Amino acid sequence: MTFAVILLGVFGLSSSFSSATQMGLSDKVLVFPYETDFSFVALIPQKEMGLRAFTLCMRVATELPEERQIILFAYRTADFDELNVWREKDGRVSFYMSGDGCFFHLPPLTTFRSSLCLTWESRTGLAAFWVEGKRSTYQVYKPGHIIRPKGSVILGQDPDKHLGGLEAVQSFVGEVTDVNMWDYVLSRSMIQAWHYGHKVPKGNVFDWATLEYEVNGNVLVVDDD
Amino acid sequence: MTFAVILLGVFGLSSSFSSATQMGLSDKVLVFPYETDFSFVALIPQKEMGLRAFTLCMRVATELPEERQIILFAYRTADFDELNVWREKDGRVSFYMSGDGCFFHLPPLTTFRSSLCLTWESRTGLAAFWVEGKRSTYQVYKPGHIIRPKGSVILGQDPDKHLGGLEAVQSFVGEVTDVNMWDYVLSRSMIQAWHYGHKVPKGNVFDWATLEYEVNGNVLVVDDD
Amino acid sequence: MTFAVILLGVFGLSSSFSSATQMGLSDKVLVFPYETDFSFVALIPQKEMGLRAFTLCMRVATELPEERQIILFAYRTADFDELNVWREKDGRVSFYMSGDGCFFHLPPLTTFRSSLCLTWESRTGLAAFWVEGKRSTYQVYKPGHIIRPKGSVILGQDPDKHLGGLEAVQSFVGEVTDVNMWDYVLSRSMIQAWHYGHKVPKGNVFDWATLEYEVNGNVLVVDDD
Repeated sequence: MTFAVILLGVFGLSSSFSSATQMGLSDKVLVFPYETDFSFVALIPQKEMGLRAFTLCMRVATELPEERQIILFAYRTADFDELNVWREKDGRVSFYMSGDGCFFHLPPLTTFRSSLCLTWESRTGLAAFWVEGKRSTYQVYKPGHIIRPKGSVILGQDPDKHLGGLEAVQSFVGEVTDVNMWDYVLSRSMIQAWHYGHKVPKGNVFDWATLEYEVNGNVLVVDDD
Repeated sequence: MTFAVILLGVFGLSSSFSSATQMGLSDKVLVFPYETDFSFVALIPQKEMGLRAFTLCMRVATELPEERQIILFAYRTADFDELNVWREKDGRVSFYMSGDGCFFHLPPLTTFRSSLCLTWESRTGLAAFWVEGKRSTYQVYKPGHIIRPKGSVILGQDPDKHLGGLEAVQSFVGEVTDVNMWDYVLSRSMIQAWHYGHKVPKGNVFDWATLEYEVNGNVLVVDDD
Repeated sequence: MTFAVILLGVFGLSSSFSSATQMGLSDKVLVFPYETDFSFVALIPQKEMGLRAFTLCMRVATELPEERQIILFAYRTADFDELNVWREKDGRVSFYMSGDGCFFHLPPLTTFRSSLCLTWESRTGLAAFWVEGKRSTYQVYKPGHIIRPKGSVILGQDPDKHLGGLEAVQSFVGEVTDVNMWDYVLSRSMIQAWHYGHKVPKGNVFDWATLEYEVNGNVLVVDDD
């Protein structure tokens, strides 16, 4: 797969290697069965992602070893990694908005599903991860920053780390489900409700139940049991 | 103990070292008190084990050190290890069907009893372990494969790893109980029900309560307290 | 920032770098966003701190690495560290009253909030930490000792470790909330009630809801969500 094809996939255009756009993933899980530099799922947001705040939630499980870098979420515009979420080589979980990142010590990702949310607000810069509904310590990260719109979101790969191709050693292997995103910070009680599978306001950027998505490469869409 | 005698034991024939066949292990635990190359329990299935899917469950506890290989379940036909479940030297839990295995990072087996299930389905190849009712990440393993019938199942030893004898260093030491097997994949809710000791459909391959078995060597059948 | 200015801050006098005294922190959290040698919060006690017994409680979260020394609470009079609470380099939690300390092995402080209480009584010397409402083993520490009054309490820095300045490498980074202190030992049931956020007698030395405090340097007062 060449860089050109990657970009087509990343930016939501059809390519000979990608499936047609599909809708809705209620009670479904995305399984990335092995390491590749070509398997990913593009997510089409419901609204432009010019964001001054957000809550991003997902449930994720992986068998990858602790010292392996893993991309968990990638939102990229033409020139910037607008919002990338990583599990770092040293085990920390991090996110990056157009430059240096913000790092958290969280319980390790394991073969069992973890519920993971990330909240950030431009006004104060307060950023936190939430694991199983419990908030990490706040960090102050890029107060005043605005995430740019008109980019593309993908799961499974870091779309542009090196010119000319995706990197298998950064790819996601495992399962991801219930990816939801809001353009505001959910309260503690809402995040806990989401963690326990209770009713919460639907994600207005991404709503797993009605999500428009496009599978590329080898990714299985399986029933959640 | 010679290889000939081992094979007699393994394949369910009577030998001078094995007890007569017995029935039913309700509220009983098998205790393998120390490392041997001759102690095992043969399990006689209720139906032929030509399997396109299965669920295998057991409760298991061991004091063996983490870096010790341990056989947890062995089903062998004349020429193949049809279904072997291991705790590997590196701590992972694995299973093998006629060749290369499939490896999972699970919480360690300890001196406290763990409930462990394994599910696999030929159609998709989806394989997972379930620890305390929680599913591991799915792996895709040998889609289309069929487990062959007319073999023998034993607990406590790997029957044919090396021609000429069993290996003490692979033997099981500890307690095992509640071994059940179905020729289909149980749902999450059924596996959780089994974990909590609630009523579930009886295993149609092995049902601990009515299990036909044969003790060989030094294995204690004790009341579960 | 010079030593003189620090002392002004520590001893509750106004300085050009410190905010005016404020009252009450109900539903607020103090966020110390990064390592400094100048950020701290001075707490003004409701009564003189000549103490023959006490209960000190707080909720605390930190991202600091395990091998990093962290000051958690510091009460100093002119010549003595009257009551300092530390997370030590070796991970133990300790407290010191005018000299050698008393060390406890507790679960590690993490990015998630821990509830931490410390009780001590002069008559018996019985000292214990309480984590999430569970008591550590008692230790006998300085029976007969009396904590001296007319000092100052600060959070975030160790005020006098080295003449001429605070040490960034001992500073607190993270979140602290719900700091309460009583001049007697609360019962187990009261400490558990406090842990769960239930109603308990208001702290008569410090009561978070009505606390008089003074922010110095870069400390955020944010809503607890």
